[in-house]
Amino acid sequence: MFVTETQIRMHYALTDQMGVVYYGNYAQFYEIGRTEAIRQLGYTYKDIEAMGIIMPVVEMNSKFLRPAKYDDLITVKTTLRELPTGHAINFFFEIFNEDDKLLNAGNVMLYFMEAVTMKRSKMPDDLKAKLKGYF
Amino acid sequence: MFVTETQIRMHYALTDQMGVVYYGNYAQFYEIGRTEAIRQLGYTYKDIEAMGIIMPVVEMNSKFLRPAKYDDLITVKTTLRELPTGHAINFFFEIFNEDDKLLNAGNVMLYFMEAVTMKRSKMPDDLKAKLKGYF
Amino acid sequence: MFVTETQIRMHYALTDQMGVVYYGNYAQFYEIGRTEAIRQLGYTYKDIEAMGIIMPVVEMNSKFLRPAKYDDLITVKTTLRELPTGHAINFFFEIFNEDDKLLNAGNVMLYFMEAVTMKRSKMPDDLKAKLKGYF
Amino acid sequence: MFVTETQIRMHYALTDQMGVVYYGNYAQFYEIGRTEAIRQLGYTYKDIEAMGIIMPVVEMNSKFLRPAKYDDLITVKTTLRELPTGHAINFFFEIFNEDDKLLNAGNVMLYFMEAVTMKRSKMPDDLKAKLKGYF
Repeated sequence: MFVTETQIRMHYALTDQMGVVYYGNYAQFYEIGRTEAIRQLGYTYKDIEAMGIIMPVVEMNSKFLRPAKYDDLITVKTTLRELPTGHAINFFFEIFNEDDKLLNAGNVMLYFMEAVTMKRSKMPDDLKAKLKGYF
Repeated sequence: MFVTETQIRMHYALTDQMGVVYYGNYAQFYEIGRTEAIRQLGYTYKDIEAMGIIMPVVEMNSKFLRPAKYDDLITVKTTLRELPTGHAINFFFEIFNEDDKLLNAGNVMLYFMEAVTMKRSKMPDDLKAKLKGYF
Repeated sequence: MFVTETQIRMHYALTDQMGVVYYGNYAQFYEIGRTEAIRQLGYTYKDIEAMGIIMPVVEMNSKFLRPAKYDDLITVKTTLRELPTGHAINFFFEIFNEDDKLLNAGNVMLYFMEAVTMKRSKMPDDLKAKLKGYF
Repeated sequence: MFVTETQIRMHYALTDQMGVVYYGNYAQFYEIGRTEAIRQLGYTYKDIEAMGIIMPVVEMNSKFLRPAKYDDLITVKTTLRELPTGHAINFFFEIFNEDDKLLNAGNVMLYFMEAVTMKRSKMPDDLKAKLKGYF
């Protein structure tokens, strides 16, 4: 398993008139979570794009247990449960507030695709090599 | 079944540097879809809030089949498969482009809650009466 | 003068916990206003990009007089006061609510640039020809 | 003068299909800049709201000199040039990329208002006391 944690401060733009963080913003928190997970391997998603690989999202599932609120410093815990062997990669997310209460749990599945041909591809070997030790 | 359709033009703000609509924006399209569904019953979500009922999202699931692109006029088809009897309501969504290709399919479950007490509530009787004929 | 009007419904995602539309969203309303202005000339901004011209924003100014609120159907009045002769185009905006109250006034200046060379360019002749009659 | 600096990582959601950060997102960076400026005084904007004071934006001006790009770690330099004496406060912003190039410069004027009466108010005395030393 490969697990990383990232913190994000909830600014005003993220709230709605219910006084909580709008449900549509969690996809961004997931994006930040998985980007920082990759960065911790000494890589960036930008590097992956520079190799000609793009990673479109194909599926997202999300459960909203408690609302995040303005000025909360949330923790996004990002987990890769298994090493991707095919064209798909599945990230799992848990989001906690400062009291360590679970606010949200979800997952996002992405595909590795060649940007030019738009054909399914695989995880770049370099990145895979860096991940292997965690599984 | 209660089915409605709404159209939304994809503006620049919704795109990302992959040249498609960012995956995190579909939650907004779902919101617009269900709001317009309620409006077609002669109601607004604003009316519901004025009655002291709020409707937080508790779950969202989404599959991304094809990307929406800049300037696309997408159609959000919103379906209520059954009349809500408890505190939950489950909307299903299908999003099509102008060539009638299915881009995205998903669902959002919300709860009816009393804004003051934050206790689970039910669909307001008035709204339920308007919906009954469709089931 | 070339003046057009577009209507936009304020959905929940646009609000913040002050109970009004977040100030950062008006840039999007300006974008929709100028895009629809171009569309009324029988053109789309997409067409302009297809010609190899991009139009980055270089300046934006905005005065917030009254807040837009959830579910408001706002009217964006977009005005081109003069025919662009150089590489800049300056759109003026006024935003009204359903009671015809002025909520916001502003302007956005954009440059015409060649996408490939990133050099300053001019308004495409075709588009200019369509605009001429208004001045 | 009171000057603070905050860093923000540009995530994918902030980009558009021009391959740069969408112009409408800078208002959020300004918001984060002024919020963190207040936090450095040992205060939060949340505290101010808890005192019954809200701070709606009444004016925003922005010049876009160079685009921010995906994964850039931008620095928002927030400056208060003078101690607010009336109901208005005017923040100035400069945004730099990692090469210390100026990307954007702007200002945002806000009013202090009583949340309940919606009458113009002044900067809370406590906050003013903390700021005084800088002028």
